Amino acid sequence: MLLLHLTNIDEASWAQSFREALAPYPVVLRGDDFDPADIRYIFVWKPQADAFEGLTGLEVILSLGAGVDALLQHPNLPDLPIVRFVDEDLSQRMSDYVVAHVTMHHRQYTRFHQDQKARRWSQYYPPAASETTVGIMGMGVLGQDAARRLKPLGFSLRSWSRTPKAVEGVESFAGDDGFEPFLSGTDILVNLLPLTPDTKGILSSDTFAKLRRGNFEGGPVIINAARGGHQREADIVSALTDGTLGAASLDVFEVEPLPQSSPLWGIENCYITPHIAAISNEKSGVRYFAQIVRDHRAGKPLINVVDRQRGY
Amino acid sequence: MLLLHLTNIDEASWAQSFREALAPYPVVLRGDDFDPADIRYIFVWKPQADAFEGLTGLEVILSLGAGVDALLQHPNLPDLPIVRFVDEDLSQRMSDYVVAHVTMHHRQYTRFHQDQKARRWSQYYPPAASETTVGIMGMGVLGQDAARRLKPLGFSLRSWSRTPKAVEGVESFAGDDGFEPFLSGTDILVNLLPLTPDTKGILSSDTFAKLRRGNFEGGPVIINAARGGHQREADIVSALTDGTLGAASLDVFEVEPLPQSSPLWGIENCYITPHIAAISNEKSGVRYFAQIVRDHRAGKPLINVVDRQRGY
Repeated sequence: MLLLHLTNIDEASWAQSFREALAPYPVVLRGDDFDPADIRYIFVWKPQADAFEGLTGLEVILSLGAGVDALLQHPNLPDLPIVRFVDEDLSQRMSDYVVAHVTMHHRQYTRFHQDQKARRWSQYYPPAASETTVGIMGMGVLGQDAARRLKPLGFSLRSWSRTPKAVEGVESFAGDDGFEPFLSGTDILVNLLPLTPDTKGILSSDTFAKLRRGNFEGGPVIINAARGGHQREADIVSALTDGTLGAASLDVFEVEPLPQSSPLWGIENCYITPHIAAISNEKSGVRYFAQIVRDHRAGKPLINVVDRQRGY
Repeated sequence: MLLLHLTNIDEASWAQSFREALAPYPVVLRGDDFDPADIRYIFVWKPQADAFEGLTGLEVILSLGAGVDALLQHPNLPDLPIVRFVDEDLSQRMSDYVVAHVTMHHRQYTRFHQDQKARRWSQYYPPAASETTVGIMGMGVLGQDAARRLKPLGFSLRSWSRTPKAVEGVESFAGDDGFEPFLSGTDILVNLLPLTPDTKGILSSDTFAKLRRGNFEGGPVIINAARGGHQREADIVSALTDGTLGAASLDVFEVEPLPQSSPLWGIENCYITPHIAAISNEKSGVRYFAQIVRDHRAGKPLINVVDRQRGY
């Protein structure tokens, strides 16, 4: 039996889709009449504190989110395999966001917008994409998809990850030793890291100061499409104001919704979107997790299981 | 002998580069001491009325611009082959501009910018690229390069040109009969046409009214990176104001520099850049035209010769 436990999401709609995909396998919602001991799978999004109570027969936890940082903090998380969502549709949407913001900054949107407001005709020719280096932090499924889409546009690409990742056409840097060399050649920094104790607050004044200066008109740029916990917002405010950064695109925030009082809202070269870079899609989610359940019932091994040590 | 005749461009620098590339073949500038009858090639950018006077031995006209609409209007243009610049570097830069503006609009930049100014956290998930159709007008070198770069991003693509052009992954429409069907499925319209009597004023109220409505949040978008003569600016002002168009990105204008009094400057969903989408680069220009001259001296046929009937 599969139990759905989704907060702030249309649970009934997901349940209906799962029933169609898994029938005759039973699918239930909280509040339905069932014996908790019969639950083998729980599909969660922001599970409450008592989410796992009485689930004595539970075998696998299915996570709607691609990032499981919040789930791993759950105070009563059973010691069972967690399967996270690896979603092609989500990767596509995330890359859509990344490409749009990389290219917007590459083409000096901030400069031309200021000129427009002043009704000023001031010709400046942005560099070719090949003269601009995009540095991607995090080379999992999302980072690799972003690289694959940025490459045909002509950008020079480099990546930084925990362990070296060989991706064609992308210069790979890894680990603590590789961080400074990685930053020192990066014009536009894209964060797609998982949030772990190691990566918390990585978008800080220290990091910004190490980005390449002088190659890219207006100063280096950061784009954060991962987690608010990666960024120190006070540092971003300073860096955008004092010129350490030329611009920032932020889709995620330390506190969401971003409080009205945040100074980030009012900074001209800060581009805010309300955590909409990518969302897990019901259709692809049901297809993916229904297959996981069917394969697991048939005795096949689980895929995309979270490594709790690494945190993703 | 090659004569350079470039207006508002650093002629001396180009002459130096041409001399290095063509030596010992002679390269001269206006004002140098030479016999006009010895000139075999003239390399022009915005030639003055007397540019061709006395050039009785002229064989070929070399045009720095990829677009030759202005040159073909020259009152004293000799009836000789015109070679236009087909420049990979220029295609790359033009595609950089096109991709940046297509993706910016696809990701609903205007909407999120308005929300940011109002400090409003309002989640809206843009469609995936595959759910959005980009229609490219003009499938020459520039249009094909733009298509080649937009395709890996996942967009649905269609093209419209004078005669059908088969490009993989791009639905082709052509001629007068194909124009309405082309527009009726287009969410984001990109103009890369040559400017000819047939294409003058093509970005008009009539055209805007035929674009697809209802598929794309905020309304259809136009992007003009070709010539100001393609657009009717009064129609664009109306369409942006009354909601016929959701947004416009304009790099070119009927009169350049765009007059301070133009209402376009002040329209929030109009994105103005000062004719900087792409510029011909000296290095690639000298390499290209030096090869043209050498090949022609060696008796080989000219490439990229303008068809005066078609106008490009």
